[in-house]
Amino acid sequence: MRPEGFLQQVYNQLKRFEIPKIKMKKRNLSNLVYDEETRQFRIGDKTEIRDGSHVKQIKPLTQLVWIATVANKLMSSDKTCTLRDLYYMAKDPELIGFEDQKESNDLITDLETTCEMSREQFNIYPEERSEIFGRMTVEYTSPQDYVGRRINLTINPDGIPIGPRMTKVRFIEIHANKVIVVEKGAVFTRLLEEKAYERFNAILVHTAGQPPRSTRILVRRLNQELRLPVYIFNDADPWGLGIAMTMTCGSVKSSHIPGLVTPDAKWSGLYATDISQYNLPSEKLNEKDVKRLLSLRNDPRTKLDPWKREIDEFLRNKRKCELETFSRYGLEYFVNNYLPRKLEG
Amino acid sequence: MRPEGFLQQVYNQLKRFEIPKIKMKKRNLSNLVYDEETRQFRIGDKTEIRDGSHVKQIKPLTQLVWIATVANKLMSSDKTCTLRDLYYMAKDPELIGFEDQKESNDLITDLETTCEMSREQFNIYPEERSEIFGRMTVEYTSPQDYVGRRINLTINPDGIPIGPRMTKVRFIEIHANKVIVVEKGAVFTRLLEEKAYERFNAILVHTAGQPPRSTRILVRRLNQELRLPVYIFNDADPWGLGIAMTMTCGSVKSSHIPGLVTPDAKWSGLYATDISQYNLPSEKLNEKDVKRLLSLRNDPRTKLDPWKREIDEFLRNKRKCELETFSRYGLEYFVNNYLPRKLEG
Repeated sequence: MRPEGFLQQVYNQLKRFEIPKIKMKKRNLSNLVYDEETRQFRIGDKTEIRDGSHVKQIKPLTQLVWIATVANKLMSSDKTCTLRDLYYMAKDPELIGFEDQKESNDLITDLETTCEMSREQFNIYPEERSEIFGRMTVEYTSPQDYVGRRINLTINPDGIPIGPRMTKVRFIEIHANKVIVVEKGAVFTRLLEEKAYERFNAILVHTAGQPPRSTRILVRRLNQELRLPVYIFNDADPWGLGIAMTMTCGSVKSSHIPGLVTPDAKWSGLYATDISQYNLPSEKLNEKDVKRLLSLRNDPRTKLDPWKREIDEFLRNKRKCELETFSRYGLEYFVNNYLPRKLEG
Repeated sequence: MRPEGFLQQVYNQLKRFEIPKIKMKKRNLSNLVYDEETRQFRIGDKTEIRDGSHVKQIKPLTQLVWIATVANKLMSSDKTCTLRDLYYMAKDPELIGFEDQKESNDLITDLETTCEMSREQFNIYPEERSEIFGRMTVEYTSPQDYVGRRINLTINPDGIPIGPRMTKVRFIEIHANKVIVVEKGAVFTRLLEEKAYERFNAILVHTAGQPPRSTRILVRRLNQELRLPVYIFNDADPWGLGIAMTMTCGSVKSSHIPGLVTPDAKWSGLYATDISQYNLPSEKLNEKDVKRLLSLRNDPRTKLDPWKREIDEFLRNKRKCELETFSRYGLEYFVNNYLPRKLEG
């Protein structure tokens, strides 16, 4: 359902002199289903009612309707706004404002849940930017004056940002047979300079840490629409591992939205076991790391290898290391030695 | 002097059986000169000697020579590396390693001081990326396989990253008569969507917070080589003001390097005085903000308006606000109302 449909529902209730009631799926842990088959979290079928006749629910209900009108306007005018913009748009004593940005972010999540669409489909984005590079031509489908224009993703030697418009492109021509995803900008630059896109026939993606949803959407499209296998490389620590899990199994936080996960993506490294195998400079895990690993060990997503094996290894060896540590063997080592072995394996 | 020249000096000393001694300009505050005429900090003429016959100086001297060989190799092979890469490249028990990245970063600054070149000229970069968009065609001069290739900076509707290669382009064709620089990604997106590049005939630059040096180099080139006036917009808080100061008067930290500052750039907003004038949602300054303002008030760079006037206003009103707050008046307000007034004024 689009925000317009939701607004229509509320309008119809009011027209019938009914106090608006909205049904939406419950987003708490008790309604989170781990789907073994697709290997991802999804929201269950339990629902809850936001009832305008309860005093406490009048405010969030009105805020939700207001956000739906903004989303509707953005979609029809083909403009985008950031989460922060949206927060400020309402920060006006004459409107129903938000306590803080967390409140407006949460209500956007409510609208996502109600409509079963992602905020990116409403044209609402966070600020982060990740990047892409590869021998591939795409055609913009938005904004209006870019429709039909094409760009080759090798045109800038430092990559092209994956902004709001990049997720919606049409794929025109592809000279690549895989996608390599890396967490770190330094490694992305390394891949560009060593021409990894030529040598491995690969589209290169830089997530810039925990991948923004645009990046997850685009990687999924490359995998599902073009059947390109996806290989993910991140730091050997619980946070890097978390990035790979988010991309392949989804996150609890966005389990209410379809279309973000690439279940067939392969987590390829850095493994905890790579630290000793490649004799990499490493650091001791801190308390926060260990705590995070213990909670990851109880996660239904990590019951199988490589997740299980690597979490156990982290907890045994208590060491972590970053992707850039390969630089100790020279700038080319990662591309010349590590990558080929991992892509074969 | 290029790193090669520096290495030659050391080599010549060794060949004459002399223990190497290196002269470099002092970087402490006592040797910092504020040049009223050019309105920027520069390093003075006092020098110091790094003397290899002092036990304590053997290690940093050797590290410096090692870094110079890396810089020399990067420059001749036309490859780049990040500050983090460089730290890891030496992290090997067989080499002289670094305690932490601060140590290797500091030694890169030593090499900059010795050679009077910036690390970007050595092809050593931090990770941050900022962005550019505008009706302008540029031609790459590096890397090798991009030499002579051209890109139009409107080709991607979300902008083009200002990576290592963008600072060295040749300017081919320009349809713009000014540069608008903004601190925030949300505002950059707003400018793109409202076609500010057309309406104001402007090249748009996003600094992503405190501008990386590549951004400062590129903005300076646009101003000095193409004679385009530059307008800077940032948050109305001491940190935003600091960004504008770094771009127009230089920072203490990089006073030893020429070529980063755009003295003719105009700091155009957000002013502290804009908060009341435009009735913007604002927040109370915290202790850290006030402390920073008090130290800025004693800075030789802020003796004149608008700096002086705005710092006084901050300290009087004790309020700050972000660029995105204009969204309260609708997404178009910033571009339709605020910008035109500021560009005229």
